[in-house]
Amino acid sequence: MSKIFVGIDLGGTNIKIGCFNSAMELICNASVATEADMGPEVVVEKMGQTVEKLLADKNLSPEDVVGVGIGSPGPAQYRKGIITASTNMPKFRNTPLRQMLSDRLGKPVVLENDANTACWGEHAVGIGKGIDDMVFFTLGTGIGGGIVSNGKLVRGSDENAAELGHVIIYPDGRKCGCGQKGCVEAYASANSTAKRATEAIEAGRKSSLQKLIEKNGEITCKDVFDHCANGDDLAIEIVDGTASALALMCVSMLHVTSPQRIVFTGGMIAAGDLLLDRIKHFFNEYFWTLQPASNFEICFATLGEDTGIIGAAALAKYAYENNEFQC
Amino acid sequence: MSKIFVGIDLGGTNIKIGCFNSAMELICNASVATEADMGPEVVVEKMGQTVEKLLADKNLSPEDVVGVGIGSPGPAQYRKGIITASTNMPKFRNTPLRQMLSDRLGKPVVLENDANTACWGEHAVGIGKGIDDMVFFTLGTGIGGGIVSNGKLVRGSDENAAELGHVIIYPDGRKCGCGQKGCVEAYASANSTAKRATEAIEAGRKSSLQKLIEKNGEITCKDVFDHCANGDDLAIEIVDGTASALALMCVSMLHVTSPQRIVFTGGMIAAGDLLLDRIKHFFNEYFWTLQPASNFEICFATLGEDTGIIGAAALAKYAYENNEFQC
Repeated sequence: MSKIFVGIDLGGTNIKIGCFNSAMELICNASVATEADMGPEVVVEKMGQTVEKLLADKNLSPEDVVGVGIGSPGPAQYRKGIITASTNMPKFRNTPLRQMLSDRLGKPVVLENDANTACWGEHAVGIGKGIDDMVFFTLGTGIGGGIVSNGKLVRGSDENAAELGHVIIYPDGRKCGCGQKGCVEAYASANSTAKRATEAIEAGRKSSLQKLIEKNGEITCKDVFDHCANGDDLAIEIVDGTASALALMCVSMLHVTSPQRIVFTGGMIAAGDLLLDRIKHFFNEYFWTLQPASNFEICFATLGEDTGIIGAAALAKYAYENNEFQC
Repeated sequence: MSKIFVGIDLGGTNIKIGCFNSAMELICNASVATEADMGPEVVVEKMGQTVEKLLADKNLSPEDVVGVGIGSPGPAQYRKGIITASTNMPKFRNTPLRQMLSDRLGKPVVLENDANTACWGEHAVGIGKGIDDMVFFTLGTGIGGGIVSNGKLVRGSDENAAELGHVIIYPDGRKCGCGQKGCVEAYASANSTAKRATEAIEAGRKSSLQKLIEKNGEITCKDVFDHCANGDDLAIEIVDGTASALALMCVSMLHVTSPQRIVFTGGMIAAGDLLLDRIKHFFNEYFWTLQPASNFEICFATLGEDTGIIGAAALAKYAYENNEFQC
């Protein structure tokens, strides 16, 4: 009998589901609309049916499934398997998602937040494989984080650990949506990068990005990186600001948990070396001179969009192997 | 047969040694001059003789000792039990201290850095007892740190984790001895606190501290706190600077490892509420508004000067119970 682990990436718009063998190789996958406004019961039923169809299409038996993992946005009480509230899924309030799906499928389920899940995916089969200590950043609308220490996810006492976007790097700096000032998220997320460029142009700075704003009404983070690549002075300055903010985080996180790798993911890493080389440059400029950062690397994630389902399945495998399933 | 755990706090000037029962109650202790310039063999022999004398004085048998812990300043390869180098003990170079003491006493020994050892002491029997996630700061000449996550010390890939004094809080800020700019240590250590006050006076600021400088040639951190308590404006400003730097660290560390308690120790905590209330005040000012920091507390350590020997003995007990002794 083969052992199947199911990974589910629950988003506000789509649910991605993948079935993996115990080597974490993808056997089959699907993406279905979440339709969160139909309520949690409908969403759970949809998850159940999708899993069953995926298995049937590959002539696999539901008996082969040993565990299921779900990655979900917070806030949630992950240890209890409950989604407390959700911006994108307002009908999910104190929803015992883990138990509901476990009841539907008759299988043990683990629930974890989406950034931790993606981090665990890279740790299990991606760029963090074989590494006991890593730090992970997702560069999107905001900045999420994950930390693996001693080979385990750092969840913290209130399960809100690794909110790395809200580490303060510039006290009295830019206002962040969270109410703090100077969070790294207020500088180096995709949104903040585009916003800093827009604000500079509105303040009168010259830039090749100006025409784009006039044409489209706004610019994206990708626009800023594209114009940086083409040599626009302002775009270069903005990208340098993003990279130096991330480099400051790398310096501080190296002193905090001493990871072997700091891994970045999210749409922004499509910029490749244009971003990575700058982060490394500023890191070397800021890092102490006491001793070199040996056995340490700043790098980009390798799993791409599948990180969510891979990570969720890998968490199910970990729970299975370490006897940590709670339902 | 009672089980005895020996804790050794190795400093450049003195070696403190304590014998504890398995409830971590102190049975007997001693402090002897390190005489590090005599070399590691002499120091190890001195440790051995002191332990034997302590036991004999209490009519305890060496047979009762189940494990020994040593807390030592770095840099060291703690997992290997080797002191790589030492500023205060120049004859200790690539010294296999763990094995040497184990050979001398015929007992298993663990070696850990001194800040981690103190952190573990508070975790095992002090203010961090019963808490799985804590962050610990030692406020002395510099700032050291320790992190307990999931009930374990965070050591990191190169055993340099929790170098919390070198987290950057003010980029482009004060130069730190480590070569970085804006480290929390450059603002909030005892030395930096006294130094910031001295610099302000040298730059022409009026302060009641001025007479002390004229009299003694220098001022201490304690002087600054004393004059703060007496209402001197500059001293208040300097202490506020120290407290706000520490509060920034609390905000960021809460987002990183989500501890239940952040614990401060070191000579500076003698200032009591004068310092603690200020840290809490600035923390509340800086912390996000998304959700309150529930189940979280900023507090001072409770074990005082014995933290080192208690922590070392508690690490020996942990290694014994978890079968982690390597020699």
